[in-house]
Amino acid sequence: MNKYFLVLLSFFCLQSFAQNQDSIIIKKITDEVLSNGKAYADLHDLCKHIGNRISGSEQAAKAVQLMYKRMIAYGFDSVWLQPVMVPKWIRGSKKTETGKILGGLKPFLVNILALGGSVSTPKDGITANVIEVKTFEELRSLGKEKVQGKIVFFNRPMDPTHIITGAAYGGAVNQRGRGASEAAKLGAIGVVVRSMTLAHDEFAHTGAMYYNDSFPKIPACAISSNHADVLSKSLKENSETKFYFNLNCNNFIDSVLSYNVIGQLNGTTKANEIILIGGHLDSWDVGEGAHDDGAGCVQSIEVLRLFKTLNLKHERTLRAVLFMNEENGLRGGIKYDELAEKNNENHYAAIETDAGGFVPRGFGISDSTIYKNMNAKAHLFRNYGWDKIDLGGGGADIGPLKNNCKALIGYVPDSQRYFDYHHTENDIFENVNERELHLGAAAITSLVWLLCNE
Amino acid sequence: MNKYFLVLLSFFCLQSFAQNQDSIIIKKITDEVLSNGKAYADLHDLCKHIGNRISGSEQAAKAVQLMYKRMIAYGFDSVWLQPVMVPKWIRGSKKTETGKILGGLKPFLVNILALGGSVSTPKDGITANVIEVKTFEELRSLGKEKVQGKIVFFNRPMDPTHIITGAAYGGAVNQRGRGASEAAKLGAIGVVVRSMTLAHDEFAHTGAMYYNDSFPKIPACAISSNHADVLSKSLKENSETKFYFNLNCNNFIDSVLSYNVIGQLNGTTKANEIILIGGHLDSWDVGEGAHDDGAGCVQSIEVLRLFKTLNLKHERTLRAVLFMNEENGLRGGIKYDELAEKNNENHYAAIETDAGGFVPRGFGISDSTIYKNMNAKAHLFRNYGWDKIDLGGGGADIGPLKNNCKALIGYVPDSQRYFDYHHTENDIFENVNERELHLGAAAITSLVWLLCNE
Repeated sequence: MNKYFLVLLSFFCLQSFAQNQDSIIIKKITDEVLSNGKAYADLHDLCKHIGNRISGSEQAAKAVQLMYKRMIAYGFDSVWLQPVMVPKWIRGSKKTETGKILGGLKPFLVNILALGGSVSTPKDGITANVIEVKTFEELRSLGKEKVQGKIVFFNRPMDPTHIITGAAYGGAVNQRGRGASEAAKLGAIGVVVRSMTLAHDEFAHTGAMYYNDSFPKIPACAISSNHADVLSKSLKENSETKFYFNLNCNNFIDSVLSYNVIGQLNGTTKANEIILIGGHLDSWDVGEGAHDDGAGCVQSIEVLRLFKTLNLKHERTLRAVLFMNEENGLRGGIKYDELAEKNNENHYAAIETDAGGFVPRGFGISDSTIYKNMNAKAHLFRNYGWDKIDLGGGGADIGPLKNNCKALIGYVPDSQRYFDYHHTENDIFENVNERELHLGAAAITSLVWLLCNE
Repeated sequence: MNKYFLVLLSFFCLQSFAQNQDSIIIKKITDEVLSNGKAYADLHDLCKHIGNRISGSEQAAKAVQLMYKRMIAYGFDSVWLQPVMVPKWIRGSKKTETGKILGGLKPFLVNILALGGSVSTPKDGITANVIEVKTFEELRSLGKEKVQGKIVFFNRPMDPTHIITGAAYGGAVNQRGRGASEAAKLGAIGVVVRSMTLAHDEFAHTGAMYYNDSFPKIPACAISSNHADVLSKSLKENSETKFYFNLNCNNFIDSVLSYNVIGQLNGTTKANEIILIGGHLDSWDVGEGAHDDGAGCVQSIEVLRLFKTLNLKHERTLRAVLFMNEENGLRGGIKYDELAEKNNENHYAAIETDAGGFVPRGFGISDSTIYKNMNAKAHLFRNYGWDKIDLGGGGADIGPLKNNCKALIGYVPDSQRYFDYHHTENDIFENVNERELHLGAAAITSLVWLLCNE
């Protein structure tokens, strides 16, 4: 036995001891959250005492207060509000938001929702012939002659063969985001967009749309997937089918004072290195913003609560950030980065949880060294089911932090049911499962555990 | 370059070619089921045209006919019914099934369900003092004196810290299965058992209980988890709290003719080696038996439909088996094995899907060689999310086949939500997600693909 062998042996012993310690801590974290987790109760309060909370609304202001007080109550080392100016879009009355297919003997009422950012229709709505397209290329190939004066119906479904539903969303969402201006370019007077979902149901899904200032601003709404099928069928049977819709959402205020809500547990020997865990506090103005992204907010808080309750050591500083205005402006994420840069803050990692409160699967990590280190420890997560670690990841709110942060990390829960609820009246507390939400918090906390003393 | 090197090189090339082929087939299978899967529509018909279907009931007979015709319609090589005598237990009228806590000023109505196999109470129900216990040991330590003439309340919750909820079920279900006889042994006159669930809600969960013939048969019911908490609290506040319950389920017929439903696609060069894929067609007499186990039945059929539709070669014979009477007798599984043995059938593998229509996670495989082979190919499943292959597995219905089958395999979907629905009025079609169900069928089909030409 030579001394190199002994050095090697003690290295492996230490490593094995550390991994065994990690296993014990991960089990402790998971046991605590499955037995006494608070995230589900916090989500209940956010959803049921406040409900949906679009940027700039009274509800959003209440949500800021609720979450601020909650973090204070959990006794974090510091809790503060970070002021940020946000836009405010107002849908107007949902009662007068109406869509009708006028193709058969009787008008067929359909479920629509104004897209976020849309202008209103005239007071009596608009009625026009409909031209159905699947892509912008198809639209352009029709030319002005066929589009002028019509309502363009974007009806390309999300591709169901993607396993990760976010990829299917990515392949369809340009219709929602840019469809109105693409149609207006050719003289259309309105657009109706198939809802971004893989479900076959009657929920319309709202979401952000943006106008290109070079073209007229025309009203835009989403139609439920089932009703999109009805409209398409009606057009096939009767090409003279008309569509009627009425939106009353022309209010828009550019700047309202709001806040990111931040809580922190100070690190010990590496206190100047921050690990951020965040979701967004604003939601669309329908449903309760339960999966999107109440879940991410309460999980972010739960991570810090677990560290505190279990008295887990962390050399680095842990910071829960509830960003404001992810849905229609990203002002919170941008402001956070601006101040991080100004204050010379050093972010070691930023983890975003904004993919719903579903059962955890793993993480996507942007930094190749941290990815390698975490992947080497993924076996510790195997029996918990969150062991899929991929290279590459991030999120909308932490995106701006890219140049001021070593690793951007996306938390990846299972994606199958996400677009059943996303941006609909059905994104409510009852559709979040307590264990799935809490296991998500355990997954993130266990990753933070591995990161914070590295 | 020597010839050994060339042999080695061609071996690796062939292996890599095969794995690439496998990848292509697995993608084909998944694309087809996500685009045109039939399992969800089949489940709709089973749940909505028939509904729940306890062994020996008219509904079970209708389910046999529906699934038999469905397999014929899919054009399988052969479809047949395998006769089996099953027991028939009748709950009686749900309207008169009542539970009340008599501890405060007013009776508190609670949700109960007779356990499957229970005898009736006397016509006017029973009212008695309650003794709450967590374990059989605790019960025995109380002795006859404290138990005699009372209703025993088994209130040990499932342990939430298990990641696999089936393990939590396994740790609590003896209260339901044997509680009545354990209590009767000490002179109790009835038992009420906390529902087998990790959810906090008001659904009572039924399920099988068995009497030990050495002791009196006393009536047994399940109480919802929330109401179990109410009863426990009431007992703490007032130890003289009484419980009243009324069951009218004393009908029991020992032998009714029923059937396993079987469909087959004949193999080519190894046609005498069978790969079985099965679930159970009977359910409890509440809800619609959607997750338990309509999901497994329609997935088993879907596996064969996918092979046929995609024209996939299979050297071995594929057989979908819908077992009858898993819930309260296992007569279908026992009969199937009996006939397999009698007919000298050679089963290469039997895969059971009876853990709900949730998102797939992997498989448990009993045979160490097949486990090793499949585990070596698990990377093919990684991007689909069903790559967790463990040694050890099986299922209730394929259990009897143990000595006549090389590998027993349990299909493992995610388990977090299973006991929210299990054996309740809430196990309905609407609580099964189309994509999760279909991905499960894809997972099983892709495993069968790897097994059937091995």
